[in-house]
Amino acid sequence: MQAKLNHIFLTTKGNTDILDITQKVDECIQSSNLANGLVTIFCPSSTSGVTTIEYEPGVLQDLKRAFEKTAPQSDTYQHDEAWHDSNGHSHIRAALLKASLTIPVVDKRMTLGTWQQIVFIDFDVRPRKREIIVQIIGE
Amino acid sequence: MQAKLNHIFLTTKGNTDILDITQKVDECIQSSNLANGLVTIFCPSSTSGVTTIEYEPGVLQDLKRAFEKTAPQSDTYQHDEAWHDSNGHSHIRAALLKASLTIPVVDKRMTLGTWQQIVFIDFDVRPRKREIIVQIIGE
Amino acid sequence: MQAKLNHIFLTTKGNTDILDITQKVDECIQSSNLANGLVTIFCPSSTSGVTTIEYEPGVLQDLKRAFEKTAPQSDTYQHDEAWHDSNGHSHIRAALLKASLTIPVVDKRMTLGTWQQIVFIDFDVRPRKREIIVQIIGE
Repeated sequence: MQAKLNHIFLTTKGNTDILDITQKVDECIQSSNLANGLVTIFCPSSTSGVTTIEYEPGVLQDLKRAFEKTAPQSDTYQHDEAWHDSNGHSHIRAALLKASLTIPVVDKRMTLGTWQQIVFIDFDVRPRKREIIVQIIGE
Repeated sequence: MQAKLNHIFLTTKGNTDILDITQKVDECIQSSNLANGLVTIFCPSSTSGVTTIEYEPGVLQDLKRAFEKTAPQSDTYQHDEAWHDSNGHSHIRAALLKASLTIPVVDKRMTLGTWQQIVFIDFDVRPRKREIIVQIIGE
Repeated sequence: MQAKLNHIFLTTKGNTDILDITQKVDECIQSSNLANGLVTIFCPSSTSGVTTIEYEPGVLQDLKRAFEKTAPQSDTYQHDEAWHDSNGHSHIRAALLKASLTIPVVDKRMTLGTWQQIVFIDFDVRPRKREIIVQIIGE
């Protein structure tokens, strides 16, 4: 059993931009020569997160609306009062969704469902270049 | 250190049905001959999720109400406008809760608290047969 | 590859007390002699959770307010009706945030971002002594 480290580099639009990273994570697994174990996708940032969803335009809009309900951009945030970077809601959405996701790997494939994709969500308020960590542990 | 794959098969009622799967996960660990490591419970679906809770009827009702508040079934979802399967709220609840949970295994036991059970939650709007992936990494 | 178990012991104020445990988790890694793999931080309790955030006083207040919005302390909970321990909201907040967080370890360092700290959140309604499980899998 070994650990194999990979990185995914993305350019996002910010503002709860939701990107399908399934294929990029799969490429990390294919290049690892590890067949069975776990893959952990980790966002080294306090304004982004990762989860799974059916990557379909309607439900992506629904998800954005759900984040807007939980932590509205128009609310007053003490983070913004102190730092004036207008991304208090981004920090809250990221902390609630969490920065990490772990998926089993079996015979070189993630055990995702047919309609289930991995998404990186950038909650920050401006376009950003992002790095995602992909750590595979397996044999 | 090895990876040992298991599956749990469930029949659910749907509609945010919350099932205690603690014993089934424990059986996977007992059958694995692995004593120390990590167990990852993964839902290969975009309308279900996994977490821990005290499996007590009152708090289960409270949790269902919390999901109803975050993503009400009666809201209009763009997913439903496009696909007419009436489970837009199910997708949103699942994406927010997330499909994965990783728990340490120590001396063949998960490190759960006394009042802490593992629950699978089926957010879909109809009874379903479900498969859950249980991947154990350990020695 | 090996598994190394550690524990972190904390005293909290309860009531959504948010504690930065980054340094304590790092100490676990330094003492493990493992350089590359995964660290899982797990809360063996049904009224606490773990995530990452920029540990800055303003955003911590914003996060507390977000939990108060999602599961208000003043709401009526069926858990409290049955058990009279007044922490129904604590259970709901913990179940939604989840008890586990997994972070890659690379060259003896967690792959955290510059402004990203690991926080333990105690949702219970009274000061408590808490134990957190830190399981490191690596080589």
